[in-house]
Amino acid sequence: MIIDCHGHYTTAPKGLQIWRDGQLAALKDPAAVPSRGALHISDDEIRESLEQAQLKLQRERGTDVTIFSPRASAMAHHIGDATTSLHWTEHCNDLIQRVCALYPQRFVGVCQLPQTPSNPLANCIAELERCIGDLGFIGCNLNPDPSGGYWSAPPLTDRYWYPFYEKMVELDVPAMVHVSASCNPNFHATGAHYINADTTAFMQFLTADLFKDFPTLRLIIPHGGGAVPYHWGRYRGLAQDMKRPPLDELIRGHVFFDTCVYHMAGIELLLKIIPVDNILFGSEMVGAVRGIDPETGQYFDDTKRYIEASALDAADKQKIFEGNARKVFPRITRLLP
Amino acid sequence: MIIDCHGHYTTAPKGLQIWRDGQLAALKDPAAVPSRGALHISDDEIRESLEQAQLKLQRERGTDVTIFSPRASAMAHHIGDATTSLHWTEHCNDLIQRVCALYPQRFVGVCQLPQTPSNPLANCIAELERCIGDLGFIGCNLNPDPSGGYWSAPPLTDRYWYPFYEKMVELDVPAMVHVSASCNPNFHATGAHYINADTTAFMQFLTADLFKDFPTLRLIIPHGGGAVPYHWGRYRGLAQDMKRPPLDELIRGHVFFDTCVYHMAGIELLLKIIPVDNILFGSEMVGAVRGIDPETGQYFDDTKRYIEASALDAADKQKIFEGNARKVFPRITRLLP
Repeated sequence: MIIDCHGHYTTAPKGLQIWRDGQLAALKDPAAVPSRGALHISDDEIRESLEQAQLKLQRERGTDVTIFSPRASAMAHHIGDATTSLHWTEHCNDLIQRVCALYPQRFVGVCQLPQTPSNPLANCIAELERCIGDLGFIGCNLNPDPSGGYWSAPPLTDRYWYPFYEKMVELDVPAMVHVSASCNPNFHATGAHYINADTTAFMQFLTADLFKDFPTLRLIIPHGGGAVPYHWGRYRGLAQDMKRPPLDELIRGHVFFDTCVYHMAGIELLLKIIPVDNILFGSEMVGAVRGIDPETGQYFDDTKRYIEASALDAADKQKIFEGNARKVFPRITRLLP
Repeated sequence: MIIDCHGHYTTAPKGLQIWRDGQLAALKDPAAVPSRGALHISDDEIRESLEQAQLKLQRERGTDVTIFSPRASAMAHHIGDATTSLHWTEHCNDLIQRVCALYPQRFVGVCQLPQTPSNPLANCIAELERCIGDLGFIGCNLNPDPSGGYWSAPPLTDRYWYPFYEKMVELDVPAMVHVSASCNPNFHATGAHYINADTTAFMQFLTADLFKDFPTLRLIIPHGGGAVPYHWGRYRGLAQDMKRPPLDELIRGHVFFDTCVYHMAGIELLLKIIPVDNILFGSEMVGAVRGIDPETGQYFDDTKRYIEASALDAADKQKIFEGNARKVFPRITRLLP
């Protein structure tokens, strides 16, 4: 079985954006009362949105199941207040649940969280419980910068986040560290903000004792770990200079990188440098890069091809394609034995 | 000749920090009048600060000359006001000039700029003119985030920066895009903020027509280009989706990456992916990572070894070690024919 650990519902039916547009319009209207309202999306619209996109590509590429979450760039935790974030998040997560119910062999849910800058995480804990307990999801996406590019939240190793980690540990679910859109004109979302957040999170983990405090906490750094594998010597050297544990030891069982690296040389570096137990297959399909690479004639984001073409042996490929995902997301095995 | 394009005076005599401490103390004293004052550092102290550090390592490693600038992490443009920044910058640059005068075969100067968040760049233009014209420097370090980790300045492609670029073009000098310390607790300076800034700058260049407006502008992205070579497929794909020029074409003659990547696999990726004409030898010695790699028994930052051990032919190595630096920093040839 091939499990893609990183897919977002980037092709959701237009009813989702219509709802969101209404919410955003109400934010500008002093007389409006925030309302959860209802999404107007049929099951047929959901099927249609997936059949010619994610499902088509799954079949063409020969991947089996995608760990699927709401569109990351649309989470936009910086917009509005906690109620804005909660209503939007609930709809997005409910829609993922409908996708998973329609295609239980093809999609497993991961939730967005109703984060809001400077707010405590109580409502995120509640939504995590709802999504794991009621909707059957297996993990969450945690935004280290709910401000959208101004980085006003404390580092992920700060005690601000600890109540949320306690709930993750209790439920035995991992989080993917994933930012959303950037409202800072310095940062292109998918070309800079995403990658910077990955690099930033890793360095935060390197410099603190988060995993001593949470010995079973598991965090996935997407997009191949940002800049980290390329600069592995820098990080090994910084860790050594700072008397921190060796990196392989520090990340073992805790920090995982996906394979969303869209060329063979990058994937080769990732596979060479990062212990195989810390790598999860991911493509972020349909995502940031939608075109075909003229150098290969294949989709840039068809990352399965790169791993298949690599020098890894079959056992290691199996870990990356399936085994590691089952360890990091143990709840998946209840859904897909 | 081997030219190291990236070295900072990280070992400056204690008189520099004493002056800075006095300046910072005065900032907290409402009665104090900002004063340039004087550094108390002898030529012998300068010699001593270099002989057992940069000069020793140059000799041991067999590099000839370092393009040398004030300590990047100490620029701290976010502290104080424009006068604070100007006085500090003038002293730091004057000290670099003294280094270069004492060791004209070993060091060539690059200046820090008196940037201040939200300020126009007129004083930076004046300081660039002073450093190039009066001190004999050959380039500058430009901080894309003078706020120190809050990214409040406009992107490098914004017209805010254009008057400065006009002066760079007139003087025929390049800038290295280099942030300073981070006062944002999310960003470790050398492990996250530096690398993020590199990635951010590249993506800014990818999405704008800066080099159409300045056909001879040259910018160096340090630390091996941040995450860019590792994610070259992502950047090629994003450029293609956005109908931007192919990356090789976009960067040709304009964007250069140094070799401050502290392990062989990272350097191999850099050399494989980035056109050789866009790579400059750099080590950032003595810099972010000071230890010896237990896997090799050599200094992490002895990047000359990696390039020598690579599969590049002699002509390409010569470009990286010398030829490209002479093109990017044409004023170096007046000093070192």
